[in-house]
Formats: sequence, structure tokens, C-alpha cells
Amino acid sequence: MFLDTEQQWPLNAWYQAAWAHEIAGEKPLARTLLNEKIVLFRDSGGKAYALEDRCCHRATPLRLGDIVDDGLQCGYHGMIFNGLGDCVKIPGQEKIPPYAKVRSYPIFERQEIVWIWMGNPTLARENELLVDFPWNDDNENWPHIHDMYEVECNYMLLIDNLMDLTHIPYIHRNTIGGGDQQGQVDATMEVTPRDTGVHYMRWMENIVPPPTYVKGAGFKDGVLVDRWQEFEYIVPSTVVQWVGALEEGRGARENRNQPGGFNIRIYHGVTPRTESSCYYFWTPLNGYKPKEEEATQLLHKEIAFTFNEDIEFLESQQSCMAATLDQAFINTKHDSARITARRAIERMINKETGKQLAAE
Amino acid sequence: MFLDTEQQWPLNAWYQAAWAHEIAGEKPLARTLLNEKIVLFRDSGGKAYALEDRCCHRATPLRLGDIVDDGLQCGYHGMIFNGLGDCVKIPGQEKIPPYAKVRSYPIFERQEIVWIWMGNPTLARENELLVDFPWNDDNENWPHIHDMYEVECNYMLLIDNLMDLTHIPYIHRNTIGGGDQQGQVDATMEVTPRDTGVHYMRWMENIVPPPTYVKGAGFKDGVLVDRWQEFEYIVPSTVVQWVGALEEGRGARENRNQPGGFNIRIYHGVTPRTESSCYYFWTPLNGYKPKEEEATQLLHKEIAFTFNEDIEFLESQQSCMAATLDQAFINTKHDSARITARRAIERMINKETGKQLAAE
Amino acid sequence: MFLDTEQQWPLNAWYQAAWAHEIAGEKPLARTLLNEKIVLFRDSGGKAYALEDRCCHRATPLRLGDIVDDGLQCGYHGMIFNGLGDCVKIPGQEKIPPYAKVRSYPIFERQEIVWIWMGNPTLARENELLVDFPWNDDNENWPHIHDMYEVECNYMLLIDNLMDLTHIPYIHRNTIGGGDQQGQVDATMEVTPRDTGVHYMRWMENIVPPPTYVKGAGFKDGVLVDRWQEFEYIVPSTVVQWVGALEEGRGARENRNQPGGFNIRIYHGVTPRTESSCYYFWTPLNGYKPKEEEATQLLHKEIAFTFNEDIEFLESQQSCMAATLDQAFINTKHDSARITARRAIERMINKETGKQLAAE
Repeated sequence: MFLDTEQQWPLNAWYQAAWAHEIAGEKPLARTLLNEKIVLFRDSGGKAYALEDRCCHRATPLRLGDIVDDGLQCGYHGMIFNGLGDCVKIPGQEKIPPYAKVRSYPIFERQEIVWIWMGNPTLARENELLVDFPWNDDNENWPHIHDMYEVECNYMLLIDNLMDLTHIPYIHRNTIGGGDQQGQVDATMEVTPRDTGVHYMRWMENIVPPPTYVKGAGFKDGVLVDRWQEFEYIVPSTVVQWVGALEEGRGARENRNQPGGFNIRIYHGVTPRTESSCYYFWTPLNGYKPKEEEATQLLHKEIAFTFNEDIEFLESQQSCMAATLDQAFINTKHDSARITARRAIERMINKETGKQLAAE
Repeated sequence: MFLDTEQQWPLNAWYQAAWAHEIAGEKPLARTLLNEKIVLFRDSGGKAYALEDRCCHRATPLRLGDIVDDGLQCGYHGMIFNGLGDCVKIPGQEKIPPYAKVRSYPIFERQEIVWIWMGNPTLARENELLVDFPWNDDNENWPHIHDMYEVECNYMLLIDNLMDLTHIPYIHRNTIGGGDQQGQVDATMEVTPRDTGVHYMRWMENIVPPPTYVKGAGFKDGVLVDRWQEFEYIVPSTVVQWVGALEEGRGARENRNQPGGFNIRIYHGVTPRTESSCYYFWTPLNGYKPKEEEATQLLHKEIAFTFNEDIEFLESQQSCMAATLDQAFINTKHDSARITARRAIERMINKETGKQLAAE
Repeated sequence: MFLDTEQQWPLNAWYQAAWAHEIAGEKPLARTLLNEKIVLFRDSGGKAYALEDRCCHRATPLRLGDIVDDGLQCGYHGMIFNGLGDCVKIPGQEKIPPYAKVRSYPIFERQEIVWIWMGNPTLARENELLVDFPWNDDNENWPHIHDMYEVECNYMLLIDNLMDLTHIPYIHRNTIGGGDQQGQVDATMEVTPRDTGVHYMRWMENIVPPPTYVKGAGFKDGVLVDRWQEFEYIVPSTVVQWVGALEEGRGARENRNQPGGFNIRIYHGVTPRTESSCYYFWTPLNGYKPKEEEATQLLHKEIAFTFNEDIEFLESQQSCMAATLDQAFINTKHDSARITARRAIERMINKETGKQLAAE
């Protein structure tokens, strides 16, 4: 197994099902979340719903159906289900039996994200959502473009990747990891465990800025910078990131919010599809040239390029790990945040399944 | 399982193996029927044979071989098998051991169809074939073009589809299901169970004709028609169909064989390939403009288009059903013919396996 | 199973891992041998090494890494492993734990072939290599081009193919098997079992030469030849071949090394990839026009064509055999060398696993 728990993810938790803008038009959006096939659609008032992707009549996928006034209509024989999953029409039949229904899932929208609860619906509380990313709502100061990748790896391999940044000077040597390789490995790192995950802060001072940063902020030849990487992992599968660099001597440690440097936030939402695949929702927010649409587009393109570098590794790692689950791993000192993140998700799963980590 | 029986199909029954014209030329025709790989070929006199697709020497598929004077020659080392499966030549070896043989299957041709018996060969009786479709032999009055699709669904899902026509105004809304949607759902339907399957007759009177019918028969704008759909399912896996429409007021109920309307027959032969796939043999017969070759071609093209609409649904339904075999189904009033067809095939299977349906 | 033994191949044996020239450049070469994933690379001095294709840190495949001065560097977080599998660098960490290592495999090069030992490394002895093919080192008199095919069949099906040449007039009727079909089947054949495999010699005298031979040696119309095929199978999976033809009357039996005929050697190395796939290393050596580079290229092209004819059969045979492992086979008189080869490999496997063939 990819996690040291029997169950590979918490069920009673909010996961990102989609970006808000993805649920639109006359056709439902189909996703596989935590091994379950679902369809997402909006009613005429714009409210979003999630149903299991299976008509209760003859197991036809509802994703082939159409959004109509009363709900979602199966494309095979025309049965209609409302957002709660109740059948509200059987064409040519007056009586609708009460057991004619499909499963519905609690969902709600906040900060451009559609959140879904795949576990026990009676435990779903919108106000208990752990993630807060207000910058998504601030398009003026933090303009951004949303994206989503389907990645063929266990969701925690993607979280692992974000928790150990010593991979940057290797995988991303030609983009965000270019420049001073040893300097990046030797960054100071402060790791703070939290009930809901882990937070860390890395500083690389007096360092050559990497190509992506130079391209973005326009640092001149020979300029050295103070560079920071602040990450927080929030169970079950969100990472919020704030990274950037200021020309050295400008006091980045005291105030990171100064103009003229590189300054971006990234939201990472990782939702398990199956045990060996996930949806990777991401958006980089342009905090250094918010008025320049071209800069926002360039930033998105550069980040997309680096994420594709990661994906090649993650999918190969997935195959290798799945084939060698009986073999041991070796931890290095750089694994401290990664291991703390693993402990947090395993604690959450064990709490759900009623087991306690032996080591706690 | 897709049928409520342990065995998923009868073995002792005639199934369509091919259209007669498909077995031709110097190479055998390979098919997988009821999970078994076979090859079909004709001897120099034109008689067709079916052998298992495996040379008894070293398990080379015989489909790679060639048809020669004495039978089918394996392409690897040249052994020749006659139509009964006996080895009649081992190149360079004089003596042929009596156990050098491959399995042969009873087959015969009738009405352009090649029928095969995959079960106990001693029980095969050509005169017990249940299907009679004489129109295949009447190319003058019922011209037609043969076709075959490989569909990735259990054979009974395709039969289900033909037994509940309320899907037509949904899946086929732009072709044969266009026009008056509610009128089509509200058709009168008379279902007659038979020992060998089920027969039903649907009438939609005073109804707007669908685009395909208008295109075919040339109904004028504003004309209403009386439309009929007569279907018979014959175990294990044949459906014969007669559908059409006459301008209302011309007495279609009393005599459907009048010129000037739309009038076609369709033969459907569905042979299991595996539990989750089948061969779909079909031919629509042009009974409304038999002298016009273009009309026959257009009819074939239109029907092919609608069948491809079905196939998208059937293959998705197959995937969904296979993944949720533990979940229940809901029957509607439109399932009456479908359920009767299911009872007939399950009765046939249970008779073969010696078990009786508890409910009978 | 494809062999009549529990274990499907010997572990304690030298297998071809690659052609020497394939291990080059800045990236390692990845192969799957006997179900294990490995990477091959050379150090700065040109010495070749083989490691398991899995970083011990987080199971990242080492094939994504880079060859550096100290060894092979994992592309994810930069750990470096030397040719013995020991980790020699963890970036940013001073101490390297002694258990930070990956498995290494004994390998060595000889006659342009890289040999690997996948079994117990303490049993590996370079001087016990059974194969000797000195012509690979004699490019002046035996010029040749190397090639490798990945074939989707059990390695012994490929050996079987080379041990029964009565397939040539069937599979290869248009190339090396053209000409006198019956004459080829009726060749005299002398089979000599050896401790390390089997040797056989076939002669076809006074025979029409096949198209490939005519193209190569320029035999004139109407010329008959004496044709020979000498093959030796050496456990576990090498076949060395010497075939050719001289115009009849020139005394080929007494001296095959005469100019003016067709005369080639072929090295065949077959290494199991999985139970149902293998690597096929091969090179045909031009012994009839060694000074003409075009002849060497033409020979390679012609042989490649015939091998592709074999591969179509081998891969189909693999599928058929795998699906019918419960069915029996029939031996013919032409299987004598093939069966002797099978006995040799099974003897080797049983010796390794401590079991004796009941029949011996």
C-alpha cells in the first residue's frame, strides 16, 4: 500500500471535485473520485449537485444524459433525477416508486473550488472545511488561470513531491531549479507540525535566481536574491504555497510584500481518483505583475512546464513503487516535512477507522 | 453476472457465426464465439467448415494458415486438417497418428446465415433451428446489405435494447426517434410471451413521422402517420423486426403491405463473443422502394447511424453494470417485453444445466 | 507453463543484457530481464555496470537519472550510486547510512556482447560462459550489423522456432524458404545431443536455391546447389548458426569455406523479459562478400524481413498457447532437435532447483 494504513484515504473529508467553472453547459461533468464514478451538474439556478454516475433503472451512466429543467435526464429511456438523487420522472409511467433514486453527495462552492464529501453525508459540515485560500477571490491583486491534470500516481506521491523541495535543482534544473544547485539544497528549513498537517519555510539567501524567476521579475545579470519557499499541507490533500525572491539587501525576511521582486502563490488540490491515480487541480497566482495579463499567462505556462517535469517522475515512481511494495525505503534529512505530512494523513485515517497509530 | 443464471448462455443452440459471404477467399475467417476461438473456411466445393483455431502440433493459430485442396494448412510447419478436424498431412512424415486432430463444430447455411453449434455436437439438429427469415432469400422484393459490428457489451444488453423501444425518442431523437416524443413513449404495446421468446406489437397512431421515415418514404410536410413496430425475440439471440408507417387514414392496422409508406424489416443476430462482448449481425431490408438501389443504400446508412448511437450507450452501460453488479435495478412498465425475453433465455439455460427457475 | 518445470528459466546463468554499443551516452539503458527491472551504464573509464532500476530513497526509477563522474545519479533528489550499488552521495547530507544501496548485478563484456548474471552473484564465473562466437570480433572477414527485437513470446518459443527448420518452406516461402518446398522438408538431419544443449546439421543436395540466396550470391538461373544448415543451441538461450549453399558438384560437404557461394553465420541471443516476452538479439555475419558493405546491409535487411515473418507467428502462438495450456501437443519427427533442446534447459533448471527429471 502507498500509505501505512489499511484504508488509503479518509472518506469523511472535503475533497476538491472540480473548479467551479468546469461545471457548465448542457452536459454533466463526469469524474471518478475515491474510486466512485460521479456526475456533476448545475440546476437552472446555478446550484451545483453531485450524483452517482449510474441510472437506477438499467445501470446506464448518467454522464450520457442531459441537463433539463427538473434535473439530470438519463439519455437511454429518459428518467429524470433531481439534485438530491430522487427520480422525478419516468416517461410514460405515472407512478414513481420511492426507491427509484440514485446516490447524491454533499457539495458546495467556495473560493472558486467545488468541494465534495464522499463519506457519511450526515457528517458533512461546510463550516469545517480546513482550507482557506482567499486569494482565489482577489483577481485584481492575484490574477490567475485554473488548470487540472490527471496524473497516474497515488495522491500522496504528489504531496510528497511538494513536501521535499530538494527535488527542484534536479528535476527542474532548467527552469525553477536552475542557478545555484548546492545553494538550493542547502536552504535553511523550518518545519512546524500542525494538527491539520504541516507548515514549512525555506530561505535561500544571496543566491543566483533561477531562469523562471529572471524571466518573470526581470532580475538583471549578476543580481543575487533572497529567495523563500513557504508551504503548508492541509489534510487530506491540499497544499498552499507562497514563493518568491527579492534582490538581496532589500530585507525580504522582514517584508516579502515589496514590489520589484518575484512573488507568486500556488494552490494545489490533489484528489484521489483511484489508488494509483489522482486529479491535480492547480493555479499559480501572479503577485508580481498583477496588472499585466501577459505575465499571468507566462507564469501559468512556465509552471505548467515544471509540473509536467514532475509528472514524468511521479508516474514512473508510481509504477516502480507499485511493483516493489515489499522493498524498504531510506529517509534523508530532507524528508522531515514529507514524513510529518504522512503522519498527519495517517492520523486522520486512523481516527476515522478507529485505530490509533502505535507510535503515538 | 449479466444473466440471473450461473451459465451466461446456452451451449446447445444454433448461433450465427457469420454471414455466408464472409467465408470466402484463400484465408480462413477467425472469430471468437462463446469464448472459443474458431476458424471458418470453405472446401473447394464451397461447403463451409468450422475448426478450433489451434494447431494440435504446437498451438499455432490456424487463422494464419491457408486454404488448400485438402483442407486448411497450418502456416507454421504445414500440417493440413480437413473440415472434420482430422490431420490429413504432416509434411515429411508418412504416418499420421490418429490423435492428430483438432475440434470441429457443426455448421450449416440457411437464408444467407452461417449457423454454428458450440455445444455437444451429437445434439445438433439442423431442422431444429428456431429462426426463419425468408426475406433474406427474396432480394427482389426485399433488397438489403449485410453488416456486422463488434460490440463491447454482453449480448443480452443488446437484446434488452431491442425489447424496450422507449429508448428511441431519447437515444435516437435526431433520427428514427425524432418527431413526437411523448407520442412515441405512449405507444400502445401488446406483449405475447412465446415458448421460444417473446413477440410484441406497438402502434403509434396519428403521429408526426420521424426524420428517417420522411427521408425514406417522402412524406410531405404536415402529414401524420400510423406507425407500427413489430418485434420478435427468438432464443438464444435473434430478433426479427418489421416496422413502418402509412399516412393516417389509409388503414395501416388492416393492411400494412400498401405502397407509398415506409416499410422495412430488420434481421438482428447477436452472438456472444465473451461475457462482455458480442458480434452484432444485422441487415435492414428495403420493402418500400425495392427497385431503387439508392434507397437500399440510404436505408443501410441511416440504420447504421442509429445503431452507432445505440452502441455508445451499450458499451457505457456494460462498463457501468460490470462495475456495479452488486447494485439493484428498477423496472418500469416499459420493461415487460424485455423481462419476458430474459425469462425465456434463462429458462433455456436452466433447462440445459438441469436447474429449474424457482419461480416457475 | 511454457516449460515442463516450475521455474521457467535458470537464474544462475549468463544472459545477454545488451549489445556492447547500446550502453553509451549520458543516459542509462533500461531493460527488464527475467522479470527484474535494471539499468545499465558505463563509468568514465568505459566499464559497464548493472543496477536495479529503483532508487532506495523513494522508489524512483534510476533510468530517469544521469550518468555523472561518481556513478549514476537519481533524477529526483540527486542521490548518486556507484557501479556496485553503494550510495556515494546524498545532496545536502553529510552522513550516508551503510544500508543506502541498491542491488548490483555481475556483468562483463565479450565478443561485443554484454553478459549479465541475474542469480546468486557469488556463483558468477566469467570463465564459465558457455557461448563462444569469435566471428563477432572478426569484422574484416565477417562484417555484420547488430539488432534487437522485443518479441511478445516466451523465450523458448523462439528457440523452438530455430530448432525445427521445416517451418522455413511455409513461413518463409517467399524468401529463404522459396524454391523446392518438398526438398527442404526432406533434408537429411543429424541431431547430436550435448551436455550444454544440442547440435544439428541439415543437408539439402541438388536443390533450387531460395530467392534470398540467389539475391545474395548471384546464382544463375537453373543452377542447383548443395545447401547446409548447421545450428547449435547452448543453454540457456543462445543459438549459433552457420548456413549457406555452393553450386552442386563443388564439394560443399568436404569444404564449405569456398568462395562464390552463399555463406553466413547468425548469432541469436534470446533473453527472457517476462514469461511471455523476450529480447531477441541477433546479427547475421556476411561471409560471402565480406568486402562489400552493401552486401552486409542487404543481408541484414533480408534477414530482418524473415525474422519479422517469424515474429508474427511466435506472438500469435504465444497467445494461443497461453490460452490453452490445458490442451495437449502432438510431436512430429521434425521435433527431435527441439525436444532435445527442451530437455537440456529443463535439466539445467531442475539442477538449479534441486529436482531431477523423473525420466532420467
